[in-house]
Amino acid sequence: MKHILLLLLFLPLTLIAQKRPREMGIKIGVLPAGTLNAITDVAGVKVGQVTLVEGADIRTGVTAIIPHDGNLFQQKVQAAMYIGNGFGKMTGYSQVEELGTMESPIVLTNTLSVPTAADAIIDWTLGQKGNENVRSVNPVVGETNDGFLNDIRGRHVRKEHVLNALAQAENGPVAEGNVGAGTGTVCFNWKGGIGTSSRKLPGKLGGYTVGVLVQTNFGGVLKVNGVPVGQELGKYAFKESLDKSSDGSCMMVIATDAPLDARNLKRLAKRVMLGMAQTGGIASNGSGDYVIAFSTANKVLHETAESIFSAAFLHNDYVSPLFMAAIECTEEAIINSLFMAKTTEGTQGHKVEELPEEKVLEIMRKYGRLKE
Amino acid sequence: MKHILLLLLFLPLTLIAQKRPREMGIKIGVLPAGTLNAITDVAGVKVGQVTLVEGADIRTGVTAIIPHDGNLFQQKVQAAMYIGNGFGKMTGYSQVEELGTMESPIVLTNTLSVPTAADAIIDWTLGQKGNENVRSVNPVVGETNDGFLNDIRGRHVRKEHVLNALAQAENGPVAEGNVGAGTGTVCFNWKGGIGTSSRKLPGKLGGYTVGVLVQTNFGGVLKVNGVPVGQELGKYAFKESLDKSSDGSCMMVIATDAPLDARNLKRLAKRVMLGMAQTGGIASNGSGDYVIAFSTANKVLHETAESIFSAAFLHNDYVSPLFMAAIECTEEAIINSLFMAKTTEGTQGHKVEELPEEKVLEIMRKYGRLKE
Amino acid sequence: MKHILLLLLFLPLTLIAQKRPREMGIKIGVLPAGTLNAITDVAGVKVGQVTLVEGADIRTGVTAIIPHDGNLFQQKVQAAMYIGNGFGKMTGYSQVEELGTMESPIVLTNTLSVPTAADAIIDWTLGQKGNENVRSVNPVVGETNDGFLNDIRGRHVRKEHVLNALAQAENGPVAEGNVGAGTGTVCFNWKGGIGTSSRKLPGKLGGYTVGVLVQTNFGGVLKVNGVPVGQELGKYAFKESLDKSSDGSCMMVIATDAPLDARNLKRLAKRVMLGMAQTGGIASNGSGDYVIAFSTANKVLHETAESIFSAAFLHNDYVSPLFMAAIECTEEAIINSLFMAKTTEGTQGHKVEELPEEKVLEIMRKYGRLKE
Amino acid sequence: MKHILLLLLFLPLTLIAQKRPREMGIKIGVLPAGTLNAITDVAGVKVGQVTLVEGADIRTGVTAIIPHDGNLFQQKVQAAMYIGNGFGKMTGYSQVEELGTMESPIVLTNTLSVPTAADAIIDWTLGQKGNENVRSVNPVVGETNDGFLNDIRGRHVRKEHVLNALAQAENGPVAEGNVGAGTGTVCFNWKGGIGTSSRKLPGKLGGYTVGVLVQTNFGGVLKVNGVPVGQELGKYAFKESLDKSSDGSCMMVIATDAPLDARNLKRLAKRVMLGMAQTGGIASNGSGDYVIAFSTANKVLHETAESIFSAAFLHNDYVSPLFMAAIECTEEAIINSLFMAKTTEGTQGHKVEELPEEKVLEIMRKYGRLKE
Repeated sequence: MKHILLLLLFLPLTLIAQKRPREMGIKIGVLPAGTLNAITDVAGVKVGQVTLVEGADIRTGVTAIIPHDGNLFQQKVQAAMYIGNGFGKMTGYSQVEELGTMESPIVLTNTLSVPTAADAIIDWTLGQKGNENVRSVNPVVGETNDGFLNDIRGRHVRKEHVLNALAQAENGPVAEGNVGAGTGTVCFNWKGGIGTSSRKLPGKLGGYTVGVLVQTNFGGVLKVNGVPVGQELGKYAFKESLDKSSDGSCMMVIATDAPLDARNLKRLAKRVMLGMAQTGGIASNGSGDYVIAFSTANKVLHETAESIFSAAFLHNDYVSPLFMAAIECTEEAIINSLFMAKTTEGTQGHKVEELPEEKVLEIMRKYGRLKE
Repeated sequence: MKHILLLLLFLPLTLIAQKRPREMGIKIGVLPAGTLNAITDVAGVKVGQVTLVEGADIRTGVTAIIPHDGNLFQQKVQAAMYIGNGFGKMTGYSQVEELGTMESPIVLTNTLSVPTAADAIIDWTLGQKGNENVRSVNPVVGETNDGFLNDIRGRHVRKEHVLNALAQAENGPVAEGNVGAGTGTVCFNWKGGIGTSSRKLPGKLGGYTVGVLVQTNFGGVLKVNGVPVGQELGKYAFKESLDKSSDGSCMMVIATDAPLDARNLKRLAKRVMLGMAQTGGIASNGSGDYVIAFSTANKVLHETAESIFSAAFLHNDYVSPLFMAAIECTEEAIINSLFMAKTTEGTQGHKVEELPEEKVLEIMRKYGRLKE
Repeated sequence: MKHILLLLLFLPLTLIAQKRPREMGIKIGVLPAGTLNAITDVAGVKVGQVTLVEGADIRTGVTAIIPHDGNLFQQKVQAAMYIGNGFGKMTGYSQVEELGTMESPIVLTNTLSVPTAADAIIDWTLGQKGNENVRSVNPVVGETNDGFLNDIRGRHVRKEHVLNALAQAENGPVAEGNVGAGTGTVCFNWKGGIGTSSRKLPGKLGGYTVGVLVQTNFGGVLKVNGVPVGQELGKYAFKESLDKSSDGSCMMVIATDAPLDARNLKRLAKRVMLGMAQTGGIASNGSGDYVIAFSTANKVLHETAESIFSAAFLHNDYVSPLFMAAIECTEEAIINSLFMAKTTEGTQGHKVEELPEEKVLEIMRKYGRLKE
Repeated sequence: MKHILLLLLFLPLTLIAQKRPREMGIKIGVLPAGTLNAITDVAGVKVGQVTLVEGADIRTGVTAIIPHDGNLFQQKVQAAMYIGNGFGKMTGYSQVEELGTMESPIVLTNTLSVPTAADAIIDWTLGQKGNENVRSVNPVVGETNDGFLNDIRGRHVRKEHVLNALAQAENGPVAEGNVGAGTGTVCFNWKGGIGTSSRKLPGKLGGYTVGVLVQTNFGGVLKVNGVPVGQELGKYAFKESLDKSSDGSCMMVIATDAPLDARNLKRLAKRVMLGMAQTGGIASNGSGDYVIAFSTANKVLHETAESIFSAAFLHNDYVSPLFMAAIECTEEAIINSLFMAKTTEGTQGHKVEELPEEKVLEIMRKYGRLKE
């Protein structure tokens, strides 16, 4: 290539310098957040992001979530997926659903770069020590369409970007807003992006941790912690006409250390959609809304001489607090993505404004929802 | 029987005498409600209810929804179901899903009376003129468990109650609160019941009508139009411990005159769960949350010499406003069920308080959400 | 009632006096059958049947399968269902699928008697010692439509018939043919009925037992162990015209002692449809083809102070022999139902011939498939 | 690359020189085949294949099916998918299921080349006249694992191979056996490959055409038209031990000109699995068995100013003959793939024998199933 891609690797430090909604007094839900209020509060989970911003046209990137530090193919995690609205291109669905396990990291990117990301995951998996004889990989790739701000037809995400995101994945704080796969997304007609949040259940409710990471690119009538912000700002779906502003998609990843099997992980995944609904999302026709859920608790060996898999699972009767946690931190992760995103100009001169933080805080105050 | 059942047939007149939330200034959503703000705003849809309140122990009933005036078996409606959480006993699911049509009215009642209601629907169908040769009927019966207030093990709903509900079904206003299948239900730890609401899309969005009727018996952290009423009142799931107060179930019926096929009706049904989520419902483990959707637009003949079924359906691209309407009126229907319900004492001395209307209005005012 | 119902309780002794296909040299599949070649080869599983034959019009009955001897509600079995073609009225689907457990015996009967059977299961469950506080029961009832031979609109199955079938359920040989829920069924235009078969895996394949019981009432182009019997006999679907002879339904129950969780039980259930396909069944539009699968291995307690459920499950990699066993014994169970059924006259003077055994054996011989 | 890939483009002429099973007297089913006995009997459907055989290690390829000649993205076909066993990597599932339409050709290849194929489909779609503004494409790619004969880790399929397959797609006879995506596959422990077949319903059954194309790479206990060929040849799954010979996968594509909507196409797709079962396939744990169904009848425009989609669909009551046709031609397509495949040596010195045609014909004769 004759031009240079600017890889703006947003450092967590710079990002956490900006205040997150919770710190500004927007406290969502009744359950306590985890230490980082991020998906990485689930022990072992790592996130890596590569942000591609170049010239006028490239506004895209990659966000990778790695469930644990070991050889993921050899030690699969129990997993499930739920399709809220299937107008999207997520890969990996059928095998995860059939076997109840996931053997791939989760990579989020833009719609037309899904094959590139899937191919990179295959590289990454085949290349790991111990996988010399692996001849089948089920890559899990999610996407939203950033084609309003990004020259999506140019397919600027390349394998090395995906591999870089995977390579630099780490525990600790997670950058939010215009970063990684959220670089060029639009949410409720404002700049969307990556957001994350977590909940740590009190001991009496099991003591488990639940973390969510979202890539927000959808619409509806924005509510922030129940406050009708979309209406107050005069911007919402179908206000004037049958617009398509609510289309787009939302990718949602939920991790937990609770010992859930695939069946209960699927139930957990379904609740994530209820969390999305809190923000005013309507899962419009054109929105590809997918949830991927995994548990770090009971790993499943790829090969075993033992025909029997012994494990300790959470009983159905004890999963409801996890459901509530899932709803709460999905809502907060989406709101985080909006507050942390920045006004962006992109391809074809398109510009998307960030959520006007001051105005929104004022609205929150007006409606008595700012804990100052 | 030696004792007399008191059939308290709440008259619409008496009920609409009580103010509904919308009239008190709680305006949910951005789309206009239909004339009656009820499922019966969808032309042709009729509702009939039988309420059973007797002695200390019987607090139950039947709510029937009839999609149209004709012979429903011979002229089936296009339909679909969505199971939000399957801990329930709804009948009729597989045939509706397989064929895309519904040939039965929808009857809601209590958990242990489902067979009685199904049997009554069979009676009703076999007995209709023109059905003399019918040898197969797919009854659609939904339920929630009213066993806290009602002597549910006594199975006090009898066939004639179901047939009465069907016989007296009518267009026009629909009684809400402690009525029909909502007589003994509990929602967010307050008295729940039957609720209904509708939306009429503006012409530019298609002009279609969507109506929802709910039987509310579930829990979580109550929100009224986004206001944290549950927290303010100090009553919500898992506040103190791993309680089961959020269990219970919610049956949701959605009707529309929009020409949707079964596939798009299923998508519509999925959005109803997003509406339930607005109220703070978490679809807990023990909650059976079901949605039944039907369209009055393209009837399907039971028998036809023609192999071809010609119809005009709404294109995928035009369904999103209906999704938004579904979410809005589900939220409002649930809130209506709570506001219209009355404090009830029942079996074993159990008592469930009604939502304290004055306090709630005060909370709404405090949070700036009362349009007075 | 002024007339007397003749309850012809076919005794196993009389029935096993008739030779089953395997004894006549029709050996289906490559895996060995269990001792009884019946679902009751799975330890603990019991079957009870009540046959209703009265006058000219009543040709129906009840077949009940009880997974184990204990209190089934308090000690649920892991279970799953698969819907091959959903044109039927099976109850209990959603809860089994959601929770992965079954708390009810399985009762098979005719289409219009499903509510009666469900109601009886509720009686049966509420009435058991230890269930005094049970207020929710998920009855599992399957059906096929015997309305050609049986006065199905008369709904002659009464609660006591169902309770009798449950009461007399026992281990040991299972009556086949015109018995229980198979009394009035029609299969491939011949008299169908109840059939059962089992497979015992060799130790190297796990040593587990799989048993199937079917209620056959469907059609297509009959094949017996791969031999085109339907064509040879000149009787098959669509031979002359767009007839509906292939409609009807098939209920299939599969039990195993292999420690499968609900996910793998669902996979097992799907293979049962492949077994049905071996017989030439086409799962026609009007056929309600359902599979219910359960494992007797890991019971799930209804109530437990422990939040954790520890269990040993079969690893995905070891389930394939069970799949093969499921296919084989489904095929054999269906063929058994046909060979064991007897010519029957019923309502409206309708008569259905039994499979002409001698002719079929001759055809089998001609095609080299009779092991004499 | 320093070496040259030999693109062996099997010409239809050379291939049809070899006799297909039907011509040798193996007549499967009761319905008449179409003119070519191929998926291309469905008017407008085109197939293109690229076969990669190079040196000792490369035995793979691409098979592309294009539903019609127009701009497929702008004029989508009604479609559905059914997952028989989800241990596979097919892309495109969720969008097809959600919207009921397919906007991409179907490309079959090997497991690790799925991303390459998907990327090529995106190229192909973006590059078509009229698609200049397309920013979202849902590529449909299926696969089976040819890693026993092919150096699958080398990922030798490149975009140009996929684009070539698409470019050379044509109506007319379809090459079978070791060709395209079937170049390196193994089926019932014999060499598998590509197979195709069709049925043309008599006028009284609707007169519609159904065509199937398969990529066979699975196992079980082979039956040819009901004859126990696997047992006779002494080669079948689990004969000696818990082998994995039945794993592998089967991709099945079914096309029809019958005006089915997505719901009935899904039902049609489910019957394809019943056809696979006829051949002795068991859908083992490791087999990814997928069906893609589409109708050429009612195209759906990508963009339309009309909100209403008017169409004439086949009524449920008239679909059963199509189900029977689907079963028959799936069975025949699989058998064709086996008979047309040739003994192949590949990577790591692995060799897979072709089905011994003479021996099999002898077995067929012995069992009276050869129509000579």
